[in-house]
Amino acid sequence: MSEIEIINPETVSRPAGTYSHVARVPAGATLVVIAGQVAIGPDGKLVAVDDIEGQCAQVFDNIGAALEAAGARWANVIQTMTFLTRREDVPRLRAWRTREFPRFWPEGRYPPSTLLVVSGLANEEMLVEVQALAAI
Amino acid sequence: MSEIEIINPETVSRPAGTYSHVARVPAGATLVVIAGQVAIGPDGKLVAVDDIEGQCAQVFDNIGAALEAAGARWANVIQTMTFLTRREDVPRLRAWRTREFPRFWPEGRYPPSTLLVVSGLANEEMLVEVQALAAI
Amino acid sequence: MSEIEIINPETVSRPAGTYSHVARVPAGATLVVIAGQVAIGPDGKLVAVDDIEGQCAQVFDNIGAALEAAGARWANVIQTMTFLTRREDVPRLRAWRTREFPRFWPEGRYPPSTLLVVSGLANEEMLVEVQALAAI
Repeated sequence: MSEIEIINPETVSRPAGTYSHVARVPAGATLVVIAGQVAIGPDGKLVAVDDIEGQCAQVFDNIGAALEAAGARWANVIQTMTFLTRREDVPRLRAWRTREFPRFWPEGRYPPSTLLVVSGLANEEMLVEVQALAAI
Repeated sequence: MSEIEIINPETVSRPAGTYSHVARVPAGATLVVIAGQVAIGPDGKLVAVDDIEGQCAQVFDNIGAALEAAGARWANVIQTMTFLTRREDVPRLRAWRTREFPRFWPEGRYPPSTLLVVSGLANEEMLVEVQALAAI
Repeated sequence: MSEIEIINPETVSRPAGTYSHVARVPAGATLVVIAGQVAIGPDGKLVAVDDIEGQCAQVFDNIGAALEAAGARWANVIQTMTFLTRREDVPRLRAWRTREFPRFWPEGRYPPSTLLVVSGLANEEMLVEVQALAAI
């Protein structure tokens, strides 16, 4: 596959955070679908109760492991959807992403992303879930 | 197309339910996008008012019909997203899936899936909506 | 790529609005992923405070601009997901779509779509967010 293009059109206001407006995936890509990941550690237990930053760290560890198992890397991610259960975690999530995302996408080529505050996830202690799509 | 790979990496805790962490779709697939399906029967009326299990049955009948119309089967599903409007339906949905999903995916090769509790769907009587993606 | 097929199977109740049940994307498509768009104008400011119709107009302007930047047109859209923060905006969104969507999809070949009412978006003044997927 030729490279994924990350596009931020001049006709749309510059992204107000660590995301881009468009990812364009050339024909012939292998698609990788990753289930919504939550802050469950390798031992099957939820980590970082009541701690959004700690939960984010585990969620992105899980996504990284899932990408690797599929033969993909962070640069292959073409979409993330993030679901929070508490409005007050929006600025905390933002701060975490601003600090940590450059580690995953060092060139600032952030994937398109959508952020929703929802009423609940599979379990009441889960504060964040992130679903991702990648193309190789 | 070569076969869809369903992957549950050893580095991520085993899925706590009828889903898998990753689906990997080889290049050259035909993609099938299915709109969020609700419990509307063939006559255009909502079925199973106030009954999450009855609504799930209709929703998955609709998805099955949509897959068939697109020339796909359950084994082709690479993602589902499930939206519930009542937190108390989470365990009921889980029980329904545990009972019924082996009929759709007899080998336990469940597609990646995301579950959200939301504030509402298109209409207040709808308790569940499921969106699916498939690859042929 | 051969053309995207829009399918409304006879086995599923006719769509109750401006959407279709299935989009089938032939192999060999270029995929375009568009981040959830909100009612931010070109100057980076939210438009149409407390006005769902005005916010919809800006959101779809942004999606149109993103499609264009990726070399796609409305006919290439294969999925939209719409997120509202107020239940009372559901009929208003519906009315807006009924009025405006024929402009984007003049032949009535509406893409599959999912509508959710959620607890919040990135910022409390945002009333609507729309995420889209296209295939060229």
